[in-house]
Amino acid sequence: MESLEKEAAVALDYLSRISKEAEKAFDEFLPSEKDRPCRLHEAMRYSMFAGGKRLRPALVRAAFDMFGGKGESVRYAMSALEMLHTFSLIHDDLPCIDDDDFRRGKPTSHKQFGEATAVMAGDALCILAFEMMGKTGNAKAIEILAHLLGTFGMIGGEMTDIECEGKQVDLEIVDYIHYHKTAALIEASLEVGARLANASEEEVKAIRDYGRSIGLAFQIVDDILDIVSTTEELGKDAGSDIEKGKATYPALVGLEKSRERARELYEESIKALDSLKQDTEILRSIAAFIITRVK
Amino acid sequence: MESLEKEAAVALDYLSRISKEAEKAFDEFLPSEKDRPCRLHEAMRYSMFAGGKRLRPALVRAAFDMFGGKGESVRYAMSALEMLHTFSLIHDDLPCIDDDDFRRGKPTSHKQFGEATAVMAGDALCILAFEMMGKTGNAKAIEILAHLLGTFGMIGGEMTDIECEGKQVDLEIVDYIHYHKTAALIEASLEVGARLANASEEEVKAIRDYGRSIGLAFQIVDDILDIVSTTEELGKDAGSDIEKGKATYPALVGLEKSRERARELYEESIKALDSLKQDTEILRSIAAFIITRVK
Repeated sequence: MESLEKEAAVALDYLSRISKEAEKAFDEFLPSEKDRPCRLHEAMRYSMFAGGKRLRPALVRAAFDMFGGKGESVRYAMSALEMLHTFSLIHDDLPCIDDDDFRRGKPTSHKQFGEATAVMAGDALCILAFEMMGKTGNAKAIEILAHLLGTFGMIGGEMTDIECEGKQVDLEIVDYIHYHKTAALIEASLEVGARLANASEEEVKAIRDYGRSIGLAFQIVDDILDIVSTTEELGKDAGSDIEKGKATYPALVGLEKSRERARELYEESIKALDSLKQDTEILRSIAAFIITRVK
Repeated sequence: MESLEKEAAVALDYLSRISKEAEKAFDEFLPSEKDRPCRLHEAMRYSMFAGGKRLRPALVRAAFDMFGGKGESVRYAMSALEMLHTFSLIHDDLPCIDDDDFRRGKPTSHKQFGEATAVMAGDALCILAFEMMGKTGNAKAIEILAHLLGTFGMIGGEMTDIECEGKQVDLEIVDYIHYHKTAALIEASLEVGARLANASEEEVKAIRDYGRSIGLAFQIVDDILDIVSTTEELGKDAGSDIEKGKATYPALVGLEKSRERARELYEESIKALDSLKQDTEILRSIAAFIITRVK
């Protein structure tokens, strides 16, 4: 585990550096609070600047650089992926969905601005993300991103997650939910970065396989953290998965087996990178970072 | 007025023909109710097939054909524009926004499927629209569409509309709301159709000017109809604008002046087409149709 933590430290450095670059881009591309409709723009910025690791922008950047991408398009894509992630969080937190009051230690959008503005702020971030993607000039990347985001991707996972609350489910459903709710957008971040750098189809496939594995690991680790952490550590209500009867790995197979499964997924993610001739250090370190978030 | 009604009849024929083509495309592109998440797919189809004139797809098709467009991309764009329109209606009807129970004579999405599914169905239609647009291969059209849809377009108009409810507003604000809430997406339909047909920048400008005028006329006519029609005729609650204290033309300047303004906008829309050498019969007839919806 010690060498994994050394690797994770590389990722932490990288994430810290890229999050600064990403936040500069968000500030440039998000509409000003001085422009009409001011309050909506304020709500968009509030959620975009509420913190977070900026993992998705970092994955876009890492894939783009690894495959030798050049130019400005990556900054649009980094912003788009974080906008899409933020849109999904704002809508998930709504009273009619997860009904969460806190996110990253701050009141959720609807608590701060009211429900109507929160719905609209989510919508607006989703739409702005596609405007940013339009600016990359890569229609194929847009098609794939939207597919991985829609009902056969993230939205499908969220919907199934809601539908399964309080119900008895099996591992197949939990895997379906995890893959769609979380891994799909992580996979999309890597694929968009790779495609903007004109990676080959084989390279895209390898990086998607890596993305799927770290995405699944990420969600399992999240579910473990929900059980073993305090609310203060999480910045949101700890233990809320159990309270809501969410379909999670720990609920189904226990903490120990969940840790094992996350570790397996880590190994699979590293293996997926084998076929690539590029320098995969950053991606390997990010996989290590994900797995070491939980002791 | 008689010749206008003759022209409007041409548009009615056209709309009836194109709506059949459009609905065939929707059925082909919308996910099946048999695929997971089934209920979400059902909700998407429910709202997409709840009727309506299919004005936006018809405008996409009319502009595309007029500028000599060829190929399948127009079917994706026609579907995308109707999905975006439907997404905006579903979210607008939500309890936290307009709180409407009926739309086109049927229960609104949240009444039929519950609020969580309605939020998600709107999100999913918006995202699927961009997947369709990705399939057109035209990233520039996507960028422009998203811009006209976002906070400097449709969403901006809706947000301001909500914020102004029950407040004293002036004509400048009403024009801002009308242009953004309604005209922007109508303009976008025409511009997307024109761009997919590789129209020149001058041609795009002319058709956008036309679109802005018919879009503004459309909203004024809608507001007049809300006052002079019965609930049965409208398929939604008549008189709801007054009840909610909405900022409308009739509320500000009265019915007669509103009719005059709509007529002026009609004239402006026809004038905008002057510079085009293409056959503009369909577009002229659609303008006439919009203005003759109200006697």
